[in-house]
Amino acid sequence: MADEVLFDFLHMELVSYIHHSCVKEDNVKDTSIAKLESTGFRVGQSLIERFTKDSARFKDELDTMKFICKEFWNAIYKKQVDNLRTNHQGVYVLQDNKFKFLTQISNGKQFMESAPKYLAFPCGLLRGALSNLGVNCIVTAEVSAMPACKFQIQIQRS
Amino acid sequence: MADEVLFDFLHMELVSYIHHSCVKEDNVKDTSIAKLESTGFRVGQSLIERFTKDSARFKDELDTMKFICKEFWNAIYKKQVDNLRTNHQGVYVLQDNKFKFLTQISNGKQFMESAPKYLAFPCGLLRGALSNLGVNCIVTAEVSAMPACKFQIQIQRS
Repeated sequence: MADEVLFDFLHMELVSYIHHSCVKEDNVKDTSIAKLESTGFRVGQSLIERFTKDSARFKDELDTMKFICKEFWNAIYKKQVDNLRTNHQGVYVLQDNKFKFLTQISNGKQFMESAPKYLAFPCGLLRGALSNLGVNCIVTAEVSAMPACKFQIQIQRS
Repeated sequence: MADEVLFDFLHMELVSYIHHSCVKEDNVKDTSIAKLESTGFRVGQSLIERFTKDSARFKDELDTMKFICKEFWNAIYKKQVDNLRTNHQGVYVLQDNKFKFLTQISNGKQFMESAPKYLAFPCGLLRGALSNLGVNCIVTAEVSAMPACKFQIQIQRS
């Protein structure tokens, strides 16, 4: 229990710190989201190296995604992704019906606008982890009803 | 294992982020240390409320310190404080012979100057936790040989 709240509280402070430190910038929201995302990216890169150090090589992209949905998600959010879908053309959608960073926010419509700042770091985490597994992608998040959340991963082929 | 590295990596990124975001300021080192300390303070306040919600009231100051050295330290750093000393006049010294945030830094003399930025957040954590337990204090850290570290708590009587 202790471990979970430790990470949660540190994440909350990080969001609040970065948000306030960007107040002087022209576009607070975009700047702070970009910074949170890039912090997440670097943490994701480090984490995946640690998590996969004893894993066998992944068979293919889908196999990689399954690892992300199970082991990676479980290590960070203490649960697995509830649903993984793909169009087999480079788009993956990970749905978490009770996303950890949103469970503390009331689910009224008026709080929907606070959601993006709690999703920037997780999007970066995903992009960083996939990047170190050799998958270049764009990750976006979408919330339709809190605390459920969909992460869309769009693979970038070179 | 996963939980531990998650918190570690996030802390490392926080240190690096805050350090870089303060580069424009006059006194980078002092400003970033103050910011890390205050982030730690707020996390410490939240954590201690969670940790003590089912605890009985502490008998006295020493009892509070023992809780910090055992339960609090264990929840955050996965080990207890190795040694607790006091002069019975409001000064407590907590010694950790293998402090988690210093174990990744090589113990050569030339890296001693990097230590303070990894100790600001932990000092804040301690001060925040004690503050919410009704103990106002000043917390400082001292490293003589890495990765051992001494935290000095000086109680402020009003």
